[in-house]
Amino acid sequence: MKLLPLEGLIVLEFSQYLSGPSAGLRLADLGARVIKIERPQVGDAGRKLSIKNLWADDSSMLFHTINRNKESFTADLRNPEELEVVKRLIAKADVVTHNFRPGVMKRQGLDYASVQKINPRIVYGEISGYGSTGPWKDKPGQDLLVQSMAGLMYTTGNDGSDPVPFGLSIADSLCGAQLVQGILAGLIRRHKTGQGALIEISLLESLLDFQFELLTTYHNGGSLPRRSSINNGHPLLSAPYGLYATANGYIAIAMCDLSTLATALHCTALDRYTAEHAFVSRDEIKQLISAHLQQHSSQVWLAKLHEHHLWAMEVLDWKKLTAHAGYEHLRMEQTIYAANHQEIRTTRCPIRINGRILTSGKAAPGLGANNEDITQQLLNEN
Amino acid sequence: MKLLPLEGLIVLEFSQYLSGPSAGLRLADLGARVIKIERPQVGDAGRKLSIKNLWADDSSMLFHTINRNKESFTADLRNPEELEVVKRLIAKADVVTHNFRPGVMKRQGLDYASVQKINPRIVYGEISGYGSTGPWKDKPGQDLLVQSMAGLMYTTGNDGSDPVPFGLSIADSLCGAQLVQGILAGLIRRHKTGQGALIEISLLESLLDFQFELLTTYHNGGSLPRRSSINNGHPLLSAPYGLYATANGYIAIAMCDLSTLATALHCTALDRYTAEHAFVSRDEIKQLISAHLQQHSSQVWLAKLHEHHLWAMEVLDWKKLTAHAGYEHLRMEQTIYAANHQEIRTTRCPIRINGRILTSGKAAPGLGANNEDITQQLLNEN
Repeated sequence: MKLLPLEGLIVLEFSQYLSGPSAGLRLADLGARVIKIERPQVGDAGRKLSIKNLWADDSSMLFHTINRNKESFTADLRNPEELEVVKRLIAKADVVTHNFRPGVMKRQGLDYASVQKINPRIVYGEISGYGSTGPWKDKPGQDLLVQSMAGLMYTTGNDGSDPVPFGLSIADSLCGAQLVQGILAGLIRRHKTGQGALIEISLLESLLDFQFELLTTYHNGGSLPRRSSINNGHPLLSAPYGLYATANGYIAIAMCDLSTLATALHCTALDRYTAEHAFVSRDEIKQLISAHLQQHSSQVWLAKLHEHHLWAMEVLDWKKLTAHAGYEHLRMEQTIYAANHQEIRTTRCPIRINGRILTSGKAAPGLGANNEDITQQLLNEN
Repeated sequence: MKLLPLEGLIVLEFSQYLSGPSAGLRLADLGARVIKIERPQVGDAGRKLSIKNLWADDSSMLFHTINRNKESFTADLRNPEELEVVKRLIAKADVVTHNFRPGVMKRQGLDYASVQKINPRIVYGEISGYGSTGPWKDKPGQDLLVQSMAGLMYTTGNDGSDPVPFGLSIADSLCGAQLVQGILAGLIRRHKTGQGALIEISLLESLLDFQFELLTTYHNGGSLPRRSSINNGHPLLSAPYGLYATANGYIAIAMCDLSTLATALHCTALDRYTAEHAFVSRDEIKQLISAHLQQHSSQVWLAKLHEHHLWAMEVLDWKKLTAHAGYEHLRMEQTIYAANHQEIRTTRCPIRINGRILTSGKAAPGLGANNEDITQQLLNEN
């Protein structure tokens, strides 16, 4: 591929932590020049947020994961001269992103209304926790907390158990992905109108959208869905959907015709159930299958299930997954090189374009590492 | 907003079920004309996939949720004349999407190489389960099964428990969102080059990307992460991150300074733990907090936590959530109108543009409902 799709576009990222920076990472992988605008001495608060206490350079491994392939420009926005420099950068940029709480960018004079006056072509992407106005606007917009507010905790785990959070930052990831969608759509619109746009998303709205199947069912049926009492995989799907323990591990079984399943598993106890029982006797059926599958190994069951073209797969951990030739074939890993020459093995952008994977060896920038270059290239012409 | 960003673009959606159609839904909400190309009599298999046995018109409520705001054109691709008609539509289109198993579109003569000859400007988006080549290419690409293969099941639930699936179709949602990103980036590139592009994503690569923090930690640290033995919220985050039962419900507590937390909760047992214990004594600390919080109601604890500006929120189900003024303020619901005049209450696109929400009263199309219009508008000129 001769040209990355977003080559030539300049993104100023005022965002911190995960949601906004994950959007910037995708834009960078697709070819944009992404410049983090950071506070001197401190920078993106994500620099000091570590998971498992892993570090590379002066920043956490986590920060490198999220901010590879970007540049860093430090400026103290409370200093009028430095703020003026940032405004001159805005005049040259195509996209701005931030995920500060509502009101913060306005106090800096960098809200959309102000930025639009500097550069009417700017596409301005803004992430909040619960919307930029309204009764919840000042609530803490953190992933676990938004999961809690969104009702999402009642989709996972079994009926009768406590609510269960997703073990990863799902709101951040979805909201970041949607911000990219909004920004790219805004850029397409700009081709036609010459005008930029304000793109707003909140973590909560992203999680409501994510639950669109369940919420539509709830809005039209009226009752709260009930998770399976056993092996829950999705609160609204019928038996046998879920995970099952075998004699030596776990397998997942998705939508299956029950009588084919009974045949495949040689499970006579299942014989009396037909498709019409799959919803109403969901947990009873799953209980039966669960007991039956404990007799043999995952390999034995999967062979039988696949012989009948039924949807089932093994449950893998990362060790087993990464040992597979199927994983290797995807080439989902890449190495990035930190300023101190430390090599970091990380994932790549999941999008392929014209058969090519998109990689870059560029690690996350040191704080302010690009001030000089950016000044020379973008600010020195007059 | 005068112009929706994607107005004037034509998308032909050969996709079925959730992943591909969720991408089409977003493109439609952003203004594209999305035409489902469906098999006569049968159509998108999602039409007959119901959750909780809810239906509207002849299709499931689920189908309406995912396919509102689209059109339907039926054609039998095995019939040479009808295939020719579809190829003439392709000549007029900007985007094609499909999520068939690898090889299916090629057998129809509708793979990217063939379609590119008809229309070199087409952006062709393709979703597979595990990649379009490689040892796993023919494995069933279903959400729960891909979650199983991706290692994701070991992020949720507590240490020592079975692996736990996310209770919603996370691979479908993320992969659909990324397909939109790739397609929009491809359209931006087309503005510069005049050329379309092939955009490929797999459900598995989407879930690997989703786990980028954990996989990077794993690739560089070498050991599998261990979920909390109690109240797990994220396998790599330190205490107190997680959900806690109170005397009358549940609250979520995110990252907090432990000594501030001890003060806020009047929990003297916590006094001897400092920030450096948050990782190494994670489960011990969470056990203490868990016992302590059972004494009072969620409201009492949240008042104390918020007084100290600590990150905590209540855990809501959909009933409690939708009763809140904060939810009402977001206006996240809209009504769509099926052909039989049935009203369906559903969610809207989570992206706001220039302060406006994007809604449309258009329900999912009946099978082939738009053959006549589309023939007249797009195929009748010569």
